[in-house]
Amino acid sequence: MLVVKKFGGTSVANKERIFNVAHRIEAAYKNGDDVVVVLSAMGKMTDVLIDQAKDINPNPSKRELDMLLVTGEQTSVALMSMALSFLGIPAVSLNAFQVAMHTTSNYGNARLKRIDSERIRHELDQRKVVVITGFQGVNKYDDFTTLGRGGSDTTAVALAAALHADACEIYTDVDGVYTADPRFVQNARKMKEITYDEMLELASLGAGVLHNRSVEMAKKYNVQLVVRSSLNNEEGTVVKERVKVERMLVSGVAADKNVTRVSVIGLHNTPGVAFRLFDMLAKANINVDMILQSTGRDDKKDISFTITEDATADVMKLLEDNAGRLDYEKLDYNDHVSKVSVVGAGMRSNPGVAAKMFECMYNSNININMISTSEIRVTVLIDEKDTEKALNAAHDAFGLEE
Amino acid sequence: MLVVKKFGGTSVANKERIFNVAHRIEAAYKNGDDVVVVLSAMGKMTDVLIDQAKDINPNPSKRELDMLLVTGEQTSVALMSMALSFLGIPAVSLNAFQVAMHTTSNYGNARLKRIDSERIRHELDQRKVVVITGFQGVNKYDDFTTLGRGGSDTTAVALAAALHADACEIYTDVDGVYTADPRFVQNARKMKEITYDEMLELASLGAGVLHNRSVEMAKKYNVQLVVRSSLNNEEGTVVKERVKVERMLVSGVAADKNVTRVSVIGLHNTPGVAFRLFDMLAKANINVDMILQSTGRDDKKDISFTITEDATADVMKLLEDNAGRLDYEKLDYNDHVSKVSVVGAGMRSNPGVAAKMFECMYNSNININMISTSEIRVTVLIDEKDTEKALNAAHDAFGLEE
Repeated sequence: MLVVKKFGGTSVANKERIFNVAHRIEAAYKNGDDVVVVLSAMGKMTDVLIDQAKDINPNPSKRELDMLLVTGEQTSVALMSMALSFLGIPAVSLNAFQVAMHTTSNYGNARLKRIDSERIRHELDQRKVVVITGFQGVNKYDDFTTLGRGGSDTTAVALAAALHADACEIYTDVDGVYTADPRFVQNARKMKEITYDEMLELASLGAGVLHNRSVEMAKKYNVQLVVRSSLNNEEGTVVKERVKVERMLVSGVAADKNVTRVSVIGLHNTPGVAFRLFDMLAKANINVDMILQSTGRDDKKDISFTITEDATADVMKLLEDNAGRLDYEKLDYNDHVSKVSVVGAGMRSNPGVAAKMFECMYNSNININMISTSEIRVTVLIDEKDTEKALNAAHDAFGLEE
Repeated sequence: MLVVKKFGGTSVANKERIFNVAHRIEAAYKNGDDVVVVLSAMGKMTDVLIDQAKDINPNPSKRELDMLLVTGEQTSVALMSMALSFLGIPAVSLNAFQVAMHTTSNYGNARLKRIDSERIRHELDQRKVVVITGFQGVNKYDDFTTLGRGGSDTTAVALAAALHADACEIYTDVDGVYTADPRFVQNARKMKEITYDEMLELASLGAGVLHNRSVEMAKKYNVQLVVRSSLNNEEGTVVKERVKVERMLVSGVAADKNVTRVSVIGLHNTPGVAFRLFDMLAKANINVDMILQSTGRDDKKDISFTITEDATADVMKLLEDNAGRLDYEKLDYNDHVSKVSVVGAGMRSNPGVAAKMFECMYNSNININMISTSEIRVTVLIDEKDTEKALNAAHDAFGLEE
């Protein structure tokens, strides 16, 4: 069996943890598996390198920043390979050049295009554990690139696809995907299985276990993912196309507090107004999530939308700078809001989920600001202070503790 | 003019020093030069990485150690490139893969075989400063290698040869090559010029300014070297094939305290005895320097030789283990000795130098243990405590202060 195992930065943060991971790899290797390991940079090393760069140049070129950052994963893989050798397990470390991992050319946020598997197969054929740098690639100019957030997960999934691996295991500090964040919902339950689509909704909603780029890629190439803990031997959660167990209406609930609601009040109620507004935001690279348009008075209308909290200042400035062009009466924003969502592949064929969600918010005395839905998700925007109450209410209402 | 400038680890040890170097590069760039920069790892980073490796595995594979160590220079070149950009100088960093710097396959002590100059020329054509990792290469397996001691100097010289550079400047913490070490000889004088051969003798004698591998390569490819300080704008010392100024008999004196004299006493005075001894040492990879054989009594003889001090324990053990085979009466060693040498291309045609050297040692009451000479060098082995006295005596006797 060929397995790709990915360990994040906290799992290799120091000598003790490196050996903890090495022992896990040893077990799989001695079990007869062919093992490919993908590692992130140790602990906070990437942040330290970014600080070091910004101390030299507050605006380093992205090309040079990637050249610097990739040393982080290279350090991890070399040390892990040494740890495995110490345990008597033959191992070889490879960076993005050596693999090679071909990406698009945009530094800091490149996309994987193609992976050469020849070198990896050659090393596996010699019964070596192959330890590969996550997060990084090489572009057509022979320069290092990095893949942006969630990059190492993406590397692992892409390798699993390229090598036709039997499994791709993502090791994290939690032991699987839960029906809700256990820090906020006491009776949250670990799921045995979840579909790609459900995971995508949960990932983009801030469940934080897997980055949605890696899940998208896993779905595209049908790579079966396993999310499990690097600290214990629990089974974890399998992410795949279809799940065998009878589908519940809702599989999980998630909250995201990194939200700001922006309201543009008193716009002219003429065609093209909404287009002008959102085209402007798109051109400024602002991701808009929920949108609500209300026509209350005469020939005026209000448009509200949500953005990530860190974009608030940029968006407000953009709107103020374009006051003349947009011709509104006033602006307003609130960053003390959060999104709470219920997700489930089962709701495709069941129209009652949204109503049940609104009902349970009402019963808990939680005011709903905005609503957004997809085929397998219902999201409400509420006051940030009500987040935990809303999570628990939805978790109970949909019977997720069972 | 195309110049290669090499800066060592202390020259890029922190932000202030990085900018100090960046300003020097800026001056050359604004002067219209095409500039290629070669850097070592920052300060003690290589040592820190070695410690980190040995903490994981006391005997890390050399392949993995090189994989780890090369992150050191890559960090330097990325940060330097950012510093140059900050000063408004377009720059690009390249590692051994990107250049590419092809080496032999032996990790930890590889030799440069070939340098591709295409990428560098392409970047220079765009008027960029090209900042290249010293000390490292890539072997035929696409693995990183390191060049061993003095590696970054060698990288710089090899690049200068491959690019047909007009100059190769080696920046160090001294401002040139001196007639003697100024710490020990007060009236030591900086030389304007020195030949490759003289520099080779001085380098191997522990003058410590340039590693002899880099000087050998400079001689082979006729690359004119300039040794100068990274801290001031002094002219430095030019190392080349022939020097223009009228040749002095002796150009410099040097001492090396990293020496142990080993004596094997009471060997049989039959053919093949010396061969057996030195063949054994050669097979154990021990570098033997001076050799003295004396026949005093009957059919017995004594052989003394010098080795580097750190090899003492290994050599003594080897000799003891082979006591039977070598059949000697006793062993003896002394690590409180040092070598003092006078070097000068001018002595080729002047037989009086050795005599003058012995005379000045005698006048200073310094006992000579052993003697060794080359075409352009006379070396004496003396008590370590007499080192400074001997250096000054020779420096005076050959009129080097002028």
